Amino acid sequence: MRDVAVIGVGINKWGELWRKSLRDVFVEAALLALDDAGVDRLDSMYIGCMSSGLFAGQEHLSSLLADYLGVAPIPAVRVESACASGGLAFRQAFIEVASGMSDIVLAGGVEKMTDVSTGDATYALSTASDQEYEAYNGITFPGLYALMTRRHMHQYGTTREQMAMVAVKNHANGSNNPNAQYRNRITVEQVLNSVMIADPIHILDCSPITDGAACAILCPLDMAEKFTGRTVKVIGTGCGTDTIALHSRDDLTTMKAVKKAAADAYRMAGVTTDDIDVAEVHDCFTIAEIIITEDLGFFEKGAGGKAVENGDTAIGGKIPVNPSGGLKSKGHPVGATGVGQVVEIVKQLRQDAGERQVLNCRFGLTQNMGGTGGSSVVHILEAV
Amino acid sequence: MRDVAVIGVGINKWGELWRKSLRDVFVEAALLALDDAGVDRLDSMYIGCMSSGLFAGQEHLSSLLADYLGVAPIPAVRVESACASGGLAFRQAFIEVASGMSDIVLAGGVEKMTDVSTGDATYALSTASDQEYEAYNGITFPGLYALMTRRHMHQYGTTREQMAMVAVKNHANGSNNPNAQYRNRITVEQVLNSVMIADPIHILDCSPITDGAACAILCPLDMAEKFTGRTVKVIGTGCGTDTIALHSRDDLTTMKAVKKAAADAYRMAGVTTDDIDVAEVHDCFTIAEIIITEDLGFFEKGAGGKAVENGDTAIGGKIPVNPSGGLKSKGHPVGATGVGQVVEIVKQLRQDAGERQVLNCRFGLTQNMGGTGGSSVVHILEAV
Repeated sequence: MRDVAVIGVGINKWGELWRKSLRDVFVEAALLALDDAGVDRLDSMYIGCMSSGLFAGQEHLSSLLADYLGVAPIPAVRVESACASGGLAFRQAFIEVASGMSDIVLAGGVEKMTDVSTGDATYALSTASDQEYEAYNGITFPGLYALMTRRHMHQYGTTREQMAMVAVKNHANGSNNPNAQYRNRITVEQVLNSVMIADPIHILDCSPITDGAACAILCPLDMAEKFTGRTVKVIGTGCGTDTIALHSRDDLTTMKAVKKAAADAYRMAGVTTDDIDVAEVHDCFTIAEIIITEDLGFFEKGAGGKAVENGDTAIGGKIPVNPSGGLKSKGHPVGATGVGQVVEIVKQLRQDAGERQVLNCRFGLTQNMGGTGGSSVVHILEAV
Repeated sequence: MRDVAVIGVGINKWGELWRKSLRDVFVEAALLALDDAGVDRLDSMYIGCMSSGLFAGQEHLSSLLADYLGVAPIPAVRVESACASGGLAFRQAFIEVASGMSDIVLAGGVEKMTDVSTGDATYALSTASDQEYEAYNGITFPGLYALMTRRHMHQYGTTREQMAMVAVKNHANGSNNPNAQYRNRITVEQVLNSVMIADPIHILDCSPITDGAACAILCPLDMAEKFTGRTVKVIGTGCGTDTIALHSRDDLTTMKAVKKAAADAYRMAGVTTDDIDVAEVHDCFTIAEIIITEDLGFFEKGAGGKAVENGDTAIGGKIPVNPSGGLKSKGHPVGATGVGQVVEIVKQLRQDAGERQVLNCRFGLTQNMGGTGGSSVVHILEAV
C-alpha cells in the first residue's frame, strides 16, 4: 500500500444555512479544499452523508455532487454509517489512494438538516438507532445517551458538573473558530440550568442540528510535494462496528467499536495513545466525549469526567480534545462531522489554527462515531 | 494492486417478501455466500443499498447488518449510488482487497421495498432523480425513460415491438431462474397490450418493485484456491458519473456514465467488447437495455433494437444479455441488483447456471446503473 497524504482541506461556516441547498453547501467546501491543495483535477471522490433521503428527498447524491462540482464523469461514491459517514468517506478515499487505483481523491462530508421540521429531523436521526426495537418504541438519541450517562454516573461517580465542563470547554474553543455554529462562551451554571431534554441530559449537553460540509484532498505522499508545501501524512486508519441497539450491549459505559477502531489505527500508525498531541472526538453529547476519551486510552475507564475537571483535555492540557469546538460548538451536520474533524487536525498539524492552536503538535487523532457507538472510525495523522 | 477473485456467491428468492424484514433478507443471502465460499471469517464488508431510510426508516445499515450477520466488530460500509449501489459495493470490496488492506471481504446488496405504500415507494425511487428540478416538478422514472424512448425511436427508428422483445426475452430467460420474481413467459402482444404507464412505456416494459439481497465474497486470487475450486477472477472495474438530471444532457439516446465505466473496465481488463461472452445489464426499462447494449459497444448506436429483433442478445445469440432474466423478470431490489448481476455472471462462468447456461463462456460483464444513467458501474470477470 502506498503512503497517503492530505494536501488540502476546506470547510464552510456551519450553522442554519437556509439560503443554501444541499448541493451548494457541498460545492462551497469542495472548492475551498481544491484551492487549498492547488490541484486542478480529481480522479475520484467520496461523499459521507447520513440521510440526504430523509433530510432533503435526494439520494444518488455522489453523482449529483460530482456534477455540480464540475468533475463528472469521475467515479463518485456516497458512503453512509450514520454520524460516522464523514470519517468513513475519508477512510475509503485513503484506501483508494493507498491501493494505487487513483491518485487525487476528494473525501467530503455534507448534511443539510434544517430544510425539514425539527420533528422530521428527530425522526431522520432516529434511523441511526435500531428501527425495529429502539426507534419504533419511541426512544430517540438523547434518551439513549441518558441511559449511558446514568450508568456511567452510577458506576464511576461521574457528575453533572463534569459533563457540563465538557460543553464549557468546547464552547470556549469554538469561540476561536470562525467556522463554528455557536461561538458564545457558556458557564457550568448555564449548562446545569438549561432546559432538560432527557434526564440527566440538558440541552446544553447536546450538539445542535446543523447544515455544513467539509472536504479533504488526498494523494500519494510522494506526489504531495508537487502540489503544496503543507503536507500532512495519514499514518493510521481504523474502523469498528458494534450492535447499533443499546440493549444488546453488555456494558453501557464503553464502546467496543471505538476501541476496535482505535486499536487498528494505533497499530497501523505504529504509535500509542501517549504519542497523540491533539484529538478531535465525537462529542454528540457531553457524556460521549467522556466515554470516548477513556476508550481511546487517554484516561483510565471511569476517569474521563475527572480529567475534564482537571483541565487535562483543554488546550494546554495533557491531551487537548476538540480544539475546534467539537460537535457541541462547531456544530454537527452529521455526515460532514468526520471530515470536519480531519480539517481541524490538518490545520493544527500545519500550525495554522490561529487562536485555538495546540502548541508543538506532531500526531493528531480523529474519532468519528455513528449512533450510540454502533460504528466508529479513527484516523491518525502526522505533520511531515 | 493484488489480483482479486470471487470465491462465493449467494442470492435468495426475490419477490414480495412480506414475512421478512430488511435484516433477514440480507442475512439469508450473506449466509448462502459464506457457505458457497467455505470461509469462516470476514475482514470487512460493503453493503449497497439505495434508500433504507425511505423504504424502511433505517440508516446506519452496515453496522446493523454486520451485527445481525454476527461479524461485528469488523469494518462495514454502506455505499449508495441509487440503483447502482450494489455494483458500487462490489467495486469498493474489489478495491479494498486489491489494496492489501483486507483479505476476505463481503460485497452485498439489499433492498426491502414493499414495506411502504406504492406511492411512498415511487417517491423513494424518485429521489434518484434531481429533487430540485425533476422530482419536485412531478416527473418520475417511467416519465424520464419515456422521454429517452421517444428520442431513440425518433432518431433510430426503434420500435415498440423491439422494446417488447427485450421483455419477452428476459422473461423467457427468467423462467429458468428459480430465484426470479416473475418466472412467467410473456408475448410481444401481451407487452403491447399491457397498461400504459408513460407513453410509450407500458407496464410490461418496466422492472418491478422487489425485496431481495445478493452477496459475493472476494479475496486475493492467490488465496482463492485455499477455499474453493470454483474461482472467478475480477479483471476489470469501471465507474462513471453524469448529470443525474436528464435536461442537462446533450443527448438522450446515450449514457456517458456507462461509456466511461465500460471504457475503464475494458482497459483494466485488457479485453474488448468482442471478447465478452455473456452480460448482465441494467434493464430497468426495456429501452435501457437497448441503449446500454449500444453504449457497451455490443452494437452500433441505434442498432440495439434491431439486435434484439435478430435474437443477437438471446441465449445462443451473438452476445447473450441478461440470462438471469434481468431486472425485468428476476426483479429489481434496487440496492441488490448490481450484486445480483455478479452472482449470475459467476454462476455462468462456473458453468453452473442450469437451463439458462450460456455455452463456452470465459469473459462475463456486469453493468449496473443509477437513475437515468447518472452513475454506472461495470465489471468484467473471467473464468480461471
